[in-house]
Amino acid sequence: MARINIHLPLTKPTILILSLITFFGCEQQSPITILNMEDFMDSNVKDLTPIVTEVLEKAKDQNVERIVFPKGVYHFYPTYARDFYCTISNNDNGKRRVAFPLLDFSGIEIDGGDSEFIFHGRIVPFLIKNSTQVSLKNFSIDWKVPFALEGEVVARNEEKNSFDISISTPYKVADGHLYHCIEYENSEYEKEFGHKFRRAQSVCNLIGQNIIWDPKTMAPIFNSEAMSGLLYKLLSVEEIKPGVIRIFSPYPELPPISSIFYSKGEYLANRLCPGIRVTESKDLQLQNIDLYHAGAMGLIAERSENITLDNFNVKLKPEGGRFVSSTADATHFVHCKGEIVIRNSTFENMMDDAVNVHGIYMRVKKVLDEHRIAFETNHPHQNDLLFGKKGETVRIVGKHTLQPKTEKLSLKNVNRLNERVVILTFEEHIKETIEIGDGIENLTWTPSVLLENNSIKNNRARGFLLSTPKKIVVRNNHLATQKAGIRITSDLKLWNESGAVTDVLIENNTFEDCVFGGGGKQSVILIDPEIHSSSDCKTFEKGIVIRNNTFKTFDNAIISASFVDGLEIAGNTIIETDTYPKIAKQQQHFKIEGSKNVTIQDNQYRPLNGYQTKPTITEKNSINTTSSSNH
Amino acid sequence: MARINIHLPLTKPTILILSLITFFGCEQQSPITILNMEDFMDSNVKDLTPIVTEVLEKAKDQNVERIVFPKGVYHFYPTYARDFYCTISNNDNGKRRVAFPLLDFSGIEIDGGDSEFIFHGRIVPFLIKNSTQVSLKNFSIDWKVPFALEGEVVARNEEKNSFDISISTPYKVADGHLYHCIEYENSEYEKEFGHKFRRAQSVCNLIGQNIIWDPKTMAPIFNSEAMSGLLYKLLSVEEIKPGVIRIFSPYPELPPISSIFYSKGEYLANRLCPGIRVTESKDLQLQNIDLYHAGAMGLIAERSENITLDNFNVKLKPEGGRFVSSTADATHFVHCKGEIVIRNSTFENMMDDAVNVHGIYMRVKKVLDEHRIAFETNHPHQNDLLFGKKGETVRIVGKHTLQPKTEKLSLKNVNRLNERVVILTFEEHIKETIEIGDGIENLTWTPSVLLENNSIKNNRARGFLLSTPKKIVVRNNHLATQKAGIRITSDLKLWNESGAVTDVLIENNTFEDCVFGGGGKQSVILIDPEIHSSSDCKTFEKGIVIRNNTFKTFDNAIISASFVDGLEIAGNTIIETDTYPKIAKQQQHFKIEGSKNVTIQDNQYRPLNGYQTKPTITEKNSINTTSSSNH
Repeated sequence: MARINIHLPLTKPTILILSLITFFGCEQQSPITILNMEDFMDSNVKDLTPIVTEVLEKAKDQNVERIVFPKGVYHFYPTYARDFYCTISNNDNGKRRVAFPLLDFSGIEIDGGDSEFIFHGRIVPFLIKNSTQVSLKNFSIDWKVPFALEGEVVARNEEKNSFDISISTPYKVADGHLYHCIEYENSEYEKEFGHKFRRAQSVCNLIGQNIIWDPKTMAPIFNSEAMSGLLYKLLSVEEIKPGVIRIFSPYPELPPISSIFYSKGEYLANRLCPGIRVTESKDLQLQNIDLYHAGAMGLIAERSENITLDNFNVKLKPEGGRFVSSTADATHFVHCKGEIVIRNSTFENMMDDAVNVHGIYMRVKKVLDEHRIAFETNHPHQNDLLFGKKGETVRIVGKHTLQPKTEKLSLKNVNRLNERVVILTFEEHIKETIEIGDGIENLTWTPSVLLENNSIKNNRARGFLLSTPKKIVVRNNHLATQKAGIRITSDLKLWNESGAVTDVLIENNTFEDCVFGGGGKQSVILIDPEIHSSSDCKTFEKGIVIRNNTFKTFDNAIISASFVDGLEIAGNTIIETDTYPKIAKQQQHFKIEGSKNVTIQDNQYRPLNGYQTKPTITEKNSINTTSSSNH
Repeated sequence: MARINIHLPLTKPTILILSLITFFGCEQQSPITILNMEDFMDSNVKDLTPIVTEVLEKAKDQNVERIVFPKGVYHFYPTYARDFYCTISNNDNGKRRVAFPLLDFSGIEIDGGDSEFIFHGRIVPFLIKNSTQVSLKNFSIDWKVPFALEGEVVARNEEKNSFDISISTPYKVADGHLYHCIEYENSEYEKEFGHKFRRAQSVCNLIGQNIIWDPKTMAPIFNSEAMSGLLYKLLSVEEIKPGVIRIFSPYPELPPISSIFYSKGEYLANRLCPGIRVTESKDLQLQNIDLYHAGAMGLIAERSENITLDNFNVKLKPEGGRFVSSTADATHFVHCKGEIVIRNSTFENMMDDAVNVHGIYMRVKKVLDEHRIAFETNHPHQNDLLFGKKGETVRIVGKHTLQPKTEKLSLKNVNRLNERVVILTFEEHIKETIEIGDGIENLTWTPSVLLENNSIKNNRARGFLLSTPKKIVVRNNHLATQKAGIRITSDLKLWNESGAVTDVLIENNTFEDCVFGGGGKQSVILIDPEIHSSSDCKTFEKGIVIRNNTFKTFDNAIISASFVDGLEIAGNTIIETDTYPKIAKQQQHFKIEGSKNVTIQDNQYRPLNGYQTKPTITEKNSINTTSSSNH
């Protein structure tokens, strides 16, 4: 047993003992070094952040392989956290304080010992960057004060189209508008002058994106888009009395009494603190983790290879008194490769999708010469996205068709000008047909995906969004999502998500009363690459098998598939429920458009009246379709 | 004459010729290499930014000593500009596109050849960092669209306390509020989706800090604080017709017809683009430069040594149709050293001070042990301020008294945790009397200052703010400022500006109708370190001589001095004017408090009635005062 002195910066001067426990296994194995956090903590430690920071630095220096926590409740504040300028795809960029900065690690396991990690204010729990073989396990993540406003509807006034809410989270009313406030350190300076800065620093955020939650189902309310909206609206309010706010609604319907008004604040200032941020890393294991809240996505991984999530749950804390877990997607994977495996996990009550796997198209801004183009990122959540490095393979696709315009191109040089514009030099000549706005897709960073034995419910938005040309298997999951249970798409519109599929197996899943959110086209399984819809369009997605799934559902829209070459829908059972009134009354169960080589067979439909039949099908512009269904 | 090929990234494929003109002087001199921009520009070039970026890179590689522009009008857009994460004291931090990135240069002169440089949208014209012997000369800086809203008052409604403005700058009305919009590239994506992002990206800013401008005087209106305010207010508005907006005023008085309503947008989002940003550089010359606008300060220099401004003017463009030049201070110097010389310069119509020289106190956050403290920056405009490096000298002062609590301390180590908290290790023991909130002052980075033959008028706020222990000479200037002409202060309050003076000579200046802005304590010369006012306070400032100045003024408050040891007020002439009604009617001309070793003699007061007399004096808690005046 070795003893070394650790000099902690932020506890009272004391010499702490680092226990390096060295186990020797059989003779061939190297020693495993373990570090016990117990040796670093006074019993009265209030803020673990500086201690963890210091311990991680030492662990890296000493090649420690495991850090273990004794079971307990630990608090993390941003005050003494290290910060990093983070450019995080699909989240907000900026300086972020980090509780566990795991940068440049090679082989580290952090075992929380079933502890609760409680975070306070603007801090990112885990940042994993340039690291390999990182394992996190056995802990929960929560915040003392959420990054959002929650309030129960306690009164309605239909004449004025207003409703009153009783607010359970910190808030402020100023100039006739409502702000939700996050936790911050109330220093002397903050007390005296902080009010001048809170709004601009996103400590108090104007309520923006809103949704109504149903306390009976603990899910977004049926047809929520009639009474709330994710598009930004500046709401006018009056403070009736402390804690009770009257909101003058700009939406057509008022939310019912006892429903929950929820808002996560202004767009582009409400994805500040993801739970776990992974980038440029490899071989990551996340196991037995409960993430009860995050002020952005639960997990966002970028340009990383081989990620396994096992019993990684984004869900409400039991008896936590809240309605929402992560304020954005539970998990999100951009430009990853190798294998993404998610199993035995629960994703509930998020404000966005459960799993989203995709690449991002850059957009051609200028063709400089036969070897070079300048590209631009478009959506602000893609600013400074690391698109590609020298030696990687990309191709260019048409802005309206999403069809390849070039063969594979090899990146010879990448010259970043600024957070939006980058110059790419290709080894090959590029064609003269390339137009401004065409997409550039990275083919090197595309993962295979295995999703099995997961359960999704009570979230806003979708279950699985899957865009990757590598093998995808979705098996034995239970999905009860507000929008599509599974969506396969790509676009050169708002989000510019890339990754046409080629090999998808969706089998033995149960979908239960999905697409109850209303608003726009929906389907339990939605395959809708955003291509200009003309008869000469080529197909886009390929090789999708949907078999032996069960769809228990109140609505008609089960599978909607556009521009697919090779689609098999077989052995599925649709069981009608009466959970909600139907929204897509006129729709057939299966809607096929612009596709070819489609096989539909052996599917069953069991309506409420008990008369078993075949699902209904509508087809448009499709060729070579075999089906055994009612048209 | 050497010819090299330059491969510009963003012009059509072409080989441009770089003329390296090499002059040989007398035999001892090295050759001077000159580069003419003419050789890099097509006549139809629209955006000079990428060309300048490339030329500067080549110039650095080739040790070019001068870059000259043929006289012309040149435009700079941010689209292809390089960006840098800039942490700029007293301005807003963040990624900034830069037109002239002068990083790591040693000996470079840029001669604009009397050209006009026109900037478009969010771009910083000059960034000078880690460079020595940089000279900029002979050009003007302006923006096509200003970072602010200007509108003429065309109607008033006293019952509703509203007024209507006719707006001459881009704006937007949404949800009952008014936004000013800056110039941005209207790409296809921007046209389709940009409206979702403009507000969050500060492309359209809610109007915030407001002031009324007087078109007759071209200055802030008399007593402007009665009808507008720099404190943030979210104003309710109605669009009466395109270009005409009704503002429901929260202020006690309505602005008069034909006056100008001016707003620079939300606090902490309205200091984005200073004109020239200098940091960690040495030996800088700025000569014959007209800066007609900046979306922040005109010049902000930090941790730099020896800066000379000669005929450096921040003022309105003749016939430009605007009322405001820079939206913040004309020039600002934080933690500089060596000599700051400003002469023959004009500072007009800024939204803040003409010249501000100071250090910044960090605040003690935690005493870690006898050698270490953690400090915190407080004001958000000081986030990530580079306070000090190893080997520099600092001291700690009391938070209420501003008096030193330690001898000089030498920095042994500086460990940045995040943008606000840094751990300092001192060579010396520090005393146990140090308290949370005490100030830490950097004594290494303090400059001497020479200000002569400058003219200041029509700006909001003050003329010269001077806080440095080195020699200060203010001579032969003309000051006609809305607040104090000269202010000497330090505080551990909102701004935490440091630098007690020890040697100040203010002579032969003319002050004309200063302090016409109203609001709070004012004086033409204001010496007011913000110390808790108790009788046992020690003095703070030292060695101030104010002699042979002329004060032409409508008001009474001429010199107000607190906590000075060694103050001479001699040979000054006060000439009463009737330009405005008096604001400080009850005040004596000279107000001395908590000071010692004060000499007041040979000053004259010439009131409007023509009866020549001595200025009046009021004294409080002062000792050893010699005066030859009327008490």
